Amino acid sequence: MTNSVPKFVEKYRKVSESKNSILCVGVDPAIPKQRRLNVMPDNNRISFMRRIIQEVSPYTSVIKINRQYIIGLPLEEIIELNKMIHSNGMLSIIDHKLSDIGSTNDSAIFWFKEEGFDAFTFSPFAGNIEEATISAHKHGLGIIVLTLMSNKEAIVQKIAVVEKKPLYQHIAEECKKYGSDACVIGATGNVTLENLELIKNSIDENMLLLVPGVGAQGGDANDIIRRFNRNLMINVGRSIIYSENPAEIAAQFQKQFNE
Amino acid sequence: MTNSVPKFVEKYRKVSESKNSILCVGVDPAIPKQRRLNVMPDNNRISFMRRIIQEVSPYTSVIKINRQYIIGLPLEEIIELNKMIHSNGMLSIIDHKLSDIGSTNDSAIFWFKEEGFDAFTFSPFAGNIEEATISAHKHGLGIIVLTLMSNKEAIVQKIAVVEKKPLYQHIAEECKKYGSDACVIGATGNVTLENLELIKNSIDENMLLLVPGVGAQGGDANDIIRRFNRNLMINVGRSIIYSENPAEIAAQFQKQFNE
Repeated sequence: MTNSVPKFVEKYRKVSESKNSILCVGVDPAIPKQRRLNVMPDNNRISFMRRIIQEVSPYTSVIKINRQYIIGLPLEEIIELNKMIHSNGMLSIIDHKLSDIGSTNDSAIFWFKEEGFDAFTFSPFAGNIEEATISAHKHGLGIIVLTLMSNKEAIVQKIAVVEKKPLYQHIAEECKKYGSDACVIGATGNVTLENLELIKNSIDENMLLLVPGVGAQGGDANDIIRRFNRNLMINVGRSIIYSENPAEIAAQFQKQFNE
Repeated sequence: MTNSVPKFVEKYRKVSESKNSILCVGVDPAIPKQRRLNVMPDNNRISFMRRIIQEVSPYTSVIKINRQYIIGLPLEEIIELNKMIHSNGMLSIIDHKLSDIGSTNDSAIFWFKEEGFDAFTFSPFAGNIEEATISAHKHGLGIIVLTLMSNKEAIVQKIAVVEKKPLYQHIAEECKKYGSDACVIGATGNVTLENLELIKNSIDENMLLLVPGVGAQGGDANDIIRRFNRNLMINVGRSIIYSENPAEIAAQFQKQFNE
């Protein structure tokens, strides 16, 4: 168990204070073939992301980019994108849900660093929370571990039992033990107050929570905000990036989360 | 439950028969900074992969490429690589360990198809085996579900219990129920004969197994071959791709698995 504050957590505290925001914007560039949208008429994922990043930056502390939407984009363009995020005073997370083992995880983490991200998400299906946390911190990156997801099919984390504890509690305790930076906890109805209390009692006070599911996915972040205060990164995606005015909606979420 | 043979399984049966091989070669291009190797002196991941693919092709039915080693390579180069794999009579798997939900999984699957892969690996941490299988098959791709990994930290799948069954059995049964193409079962010592029997009794006879862990990782495929015969894709990676003579070592594994 470590009691020191991980580097990514420190960076986040500074950024979220200076921006006065716990808003994380999920910038997932679906091309028109994937969704019936006219937000990306030129089919250019990079220019779509650059526009959103620019517009939301006054209200936003973190940009989260999901790997499943940027497959095939060359390294150089991701490096430029991350430079832009940083020059706007924000941090960037690659929502990769890394789920491999050993030296293969090391390879992914090596490339996340080359791409210029500050942290990545990790799916602990194969265990490895300890070795992945060590590898992340060796590369100066934060590791954000999937713990309790809010989609209705994620029964594994809620129903599965490991050594007489729910799997999600087991994961939260491992994150604390090995000094991971954050856990991912869904915000929609499948996560109960009881689940939240158990997680709160299992993690370290120096850890963050990344909370997806707010906005278009129907989640309400109030219960989570009441319990975890400023140690949160609340992700909003589609409600912002597909709106007529991403800046305005981002400002509304920033204000709502601060109240 | 479906009793029809998934399209990827049909393709594999044809290829493995015509090649007389159940060998899958894992082509993971670690650059010299990542491992102390002189196999890639020019730092060119694409040319490294092309050379290996060419050399092993007479003895190999499937090429498996791990996403964590090809991050940052542009779409066009992956498309060309898959064309080369197919023109050598082989199938290609992207070992992505996709671990997301809903429309985000759909996005990944869309891009796997654009890249030209035949199948992908899926990590069922968030559930979703049903929806991911439907989406895979809609795009004409095979889905290969992580079921019981062999690294010693993968206690989740072995120790975790869902509805009074081991998690890995629960996953295997879901794969059968929803018509997934294959399960991933590790070949090293942490997978016991009892585990193998339980899996054999849980999956459909039309399903394949992808078996990593043989070769440099120390696994022995004999027990698995005895139980599952030709419904196997046995992956060998480093022992082949980092050898002085990949063709010769691939030929040895092909012969060994056929005996």
